[in-house]
Amino acid sequence: MTAAAGRRLLAEFTGTGLLVAMVVGSGIAATRLTEDAALRLLVNSGVTVLGLAVLIVVFTPVGGAHFNPVVTGADWLLSQGTARGYGLGEAAAVVGCQVTGAVAGAALADAMFAAPALTPSAHHRGGVPLLLSEVVATAGLLLVIVALARTGRAQHAPWAVAAWIGAAYWFTASTSFANPAVTIGRTLTDSYAGIAPASAPAFIAAQIVGGTLGTALAVLLYPARAGRPATAQEPARLAG
Amino acid sequence: MTAAAGRRLLAEFTGTGLLVAMVVGSGIAATRLTEDAALRLLVNSGVTVLGLAVLIVVFTPVGGAHFNPVVTGADWLLSQGTARGYGLGEAAAVVGCQVTGAVAGAALADAMFAAPALTPSAHHRGGVPLLLSEVVATAGLLLVIVALARTGRAQHAPWAVAAWIGAAYWFTASTSFANPAVTIGRTLTDSYAGIAPASAPAFIAAQIVGGTLGTALAVLLYPARAGRPATAQEPARLAG
Amino acid sequence: MTAAAGRRLLAEFTGTGLLVAMVVGSGIAATRLTEDAALRLLVNSGVTVLGLAVLIVVFTPVGGAHFNPVVTGADWLLSQGTARGYGLGEAAAVVGCQVTGAVAGAALADAMFAAPALTPSAHHRGGVPLLLSEVVATAGLLLVIVALARTGRAQHAPWAVAAWIGAAYWFTASTSFANPAVTIGRTLTDSYAGIAPASAPAFIAAQIVGGTLGTALAVLLYPARAGRPATAQEPARLAG
Amino acid sequence: MTAAAGRRLLAEFTGTGLLVAMVVGSGIAATRLTEDAALRLLVNSGVTVLGLAVLIVVFTPVGGAHFNPVVTGADWLLSQGTARGYGLGEAAAVVGCQVTGAVAGAALADAMFAAPALTPSAHHRGGVPLLLSEVVATAGLLLVIVALARTGRAQHAPWAVAAWIGAAYWFTASTSFANPAVTIGRTLTDSYAGIAPASAPAFIAAQIVGGTLGTALAVLLYPARAGRPATAQEPARLAG
Repeated sequence: MTAAAGRRLLAEFTGTGLLVAMVVGSGIAATRLTEDAALRLLVNSGVTVLGLAVLIVVFTPVGGAHFNPVVTGADWLLSQGTARGYGLGEAAAVVGCQVTGAVAGAALADAMFAAPALTPSAHHRGGVPLLLSEVVATAGLLLVIVALARTGRAQHAPWAVAAWIGAAYWFTASTSFANPAVTIGRTLTDSYAGIAPASAPAFIAAQIVGGTLGTALAVLLYPARAGRPATAQEPARLAG
Repeated sequence: MTAAAGRRLLAEFTGTGLLVAMVVGSGIAATRLTEDAALRLLVNSGVTVLGLAVLIVVFTPVGGAHFNPVVTGADWLLSQGTARGYGLGEAAAVVGCQVTGAVAGAALADAMFAAPALTPSAHHRGGVPLLLSEVVATAGLLLVIVALARTGRAQHAPWAVAAWIGAAYWFTASTSFANPAVTIGRTLTDSYAGIAPASAPAFIAAQIVGGTLGTALAVLLYPARAGRPATAQEPARLAG
Repeated sequence: MTAAAGRRLLAEFTGTGLLVAMVVGSGIAATRLTEDAALRLLVNSGVTVLGLAVLIVVFTPVGGAHFNPVVTGADWLLSQGTARGYGLGEAAAVVGCQVTGAVAGAALADAMFAAPALTPSAHHRGGVPLLLSEVVATAGLLLVIVALARTGRAQHAPWAVAAWIGAAYWFTASTSFANPAVTIGRTLTDSYAGIAPASAPAFIAAQIVGGTLGTALAVLLYPARAGRPATAQEPARLAG
Repeated sequence: MTAAAGRRLLAEFTGTGLLVAMVVGSGIAATRLTEDAALRLLVNSGVTVLGLAVLIVVFTPVGGAHFNPVVTGADWLLSQGTARGYGLGEAAAVVGCQVTGAVAGAALADAMFAAPALTPSAHHRGGVPLLLSEVVATAGLLLVIVALARTGRAQHAPWAVAAWIGAAYWFTASTSFANPAVTIGRTLTDSYAGIAPASAPAFIAAQIVGGTLGTALAVLLYPARAGRPATAQEPARLAG
């Protein structure tokens, strides 16, 4: 493994870990401070928006700041045959670090709040509406990421990805997990943000379906890759 | 129809649909989670701000990210006689996709929350103060969009449009529908964000009046089109 | 009067009017929707942040987007002897439009909420702590504006000015009026954001003192005007 | 002392003072306006996000906008042997101004709210979970600052630093002091944001440990300094 590959793995482990720590920790804090369920979710979603944006801007140069196996899968697929293509082994290693990081992040949050760490969640989540929600949330996430990349505007990814997730917390019924690694990490905290291990497989399947749909939609809307002069600048088709 | 025109229609359908899904879905979530009416509207407006900004940045390159017949109308009018002018037929097709997308988005939100889909709203809204509110909200929206376009600064549109709508949710008395397609979509959800079908025509009329006023004000303030060197950079007339 | 000067006056009238409408209108909405005093001020300050940022970005090219006599005063003073200097008569006309716009904006907000328009406020505000608050809030506002202008970074003004005011709503005890025109406009609404006419003169005096201090501090910190190559780029003296 | 060094000290004094005034003042305002503990912390964290971002953008050109001895320490260390290296004496003077500014800022906030100034806090904070929280919060803060600097993207520091602190208010259990100067300033206000003097040394020790870890992690991830062409642009390793 090259030093650059090692740094990428460290970045994915740390970034995914901090992301899960943010989701789990803010959930615990909000639960302790108020009885109002909307205020709890407002804190949880608001902290995720702020934290996700900063994590993406910090970790992007060292390997893309995926923090999400669905994103890594789409990236691996779309990179095949291009100058920056990489092997399935590297993709698998990235995903492994995301999952391990997510578990570590949940444990870190529980430790900071003096809560039992690595305890399975008893919060069952499921049913067709919630799984549809995960499809929509993950489809939109991949649409945002792939569309920005294909139009040469990845510099907007930190705030745009964060804003999508922040909105999806509320307009979907599942509070938008949208991430298999984060879902696994959240099975191991018995707190506000937890999800029962038995609920995870269906969530992850829905996320993969959604990610596929969102990637396909982005490719359909933007058939040309970034780098072509016509799309490299900020486009504007607004009333003028 | 060219492939590019098809992509534009798909973008307007999807973008308007997701916008309405955000408004309707977050309204349902907020209603279920708290009794506080200000917190409900804070969630509803906050989600719209985040979601609208990201939808605009994602869909702009494929056709302007209008999501709004008033915006399309102004754009069509102002584009006549310029290099990017297009026919009334294309404008009508765009509006058709906006309306269809809005209805689909409302149904999607209801489905995610296991609520009855495509049910007319019983929430009557009207009266002079609310119609004046719609005039103000839509006038400001068009002022923002057209002013940014005419000064060559459309790159600010995602956050500026979202910020205007977020503010107008609160400082107008109608919670700022400001969009005929979204208004029609919201007639078909019997939830927090719904509007009774009988209330829609007056709202839409007020929006058209407001859009006309806002466009005229923008043209009055910025008589020269974008592209002239003098206005292509960030202007600064501040104390220095 | 030239057409450009007329457009500047129209921009100052409209921008200040919409700013006051946002402050007054969101105050009325929040008061009607919740009993929680912190949530009311959170709505009021949040709407001001969003609205002020978008108003500045929209109106800056047509005349600086001052919306505030203290800002116009500092701008007039600092512009003397430079290429863009202008006469005291134009400055006075700008201030006149700001004040008239502020009154019109308060009336517009009251009309949208079906409240009595142009009614004097009965809300007395005063005392040394509140006046000290106005000094601090206005000093910081001018520090932000003048510092950004003198370092050639006025493109940050929309969000930075809005963020300062948003913070000052809370960390000062006066909720940060920081603007004589807005203060006068708010004397004529008997609602949440109102201020009794008898309280206005001391507020305005404190704002002028604060504006002077803030301008002086900015000039002290940044003695060189913008435009010098050394300060024209984003500076960075951070750990590296 | 040169004039430039004097301006840097004035900037660090003023910036740190305003930062502490924001934290303390908004804490007092929130405490007076609501009984909901989550809403109080939401106000306190939200004001800090807005205020920190604007203070960084205003004061960066005049000396880096550190406002934090841990940041100054890391900056001093990493600047050694580079063109912008400076002596330990200047670093010590900067830290002195930060601490004095923090104390003055706390007093200013108390004065604006007519509360007793310079009164020791009775709010004891401590224990392993809270100290771990301070390690995490400060490590992340330094990671953000050093990573952005080393990748030539310091222009993102205002919002990224603010977003990190805003998230850390909630996902750590200590509400993220993450700053020895601010910690000392907050020992001298007997209000919401206060910390008992006896609790400060352990907090400061944890902050130094965290700052060291975060700086080391940033150097490990980004071994090359900024300025190398390969890292001077926005990187993008996203699905495309």
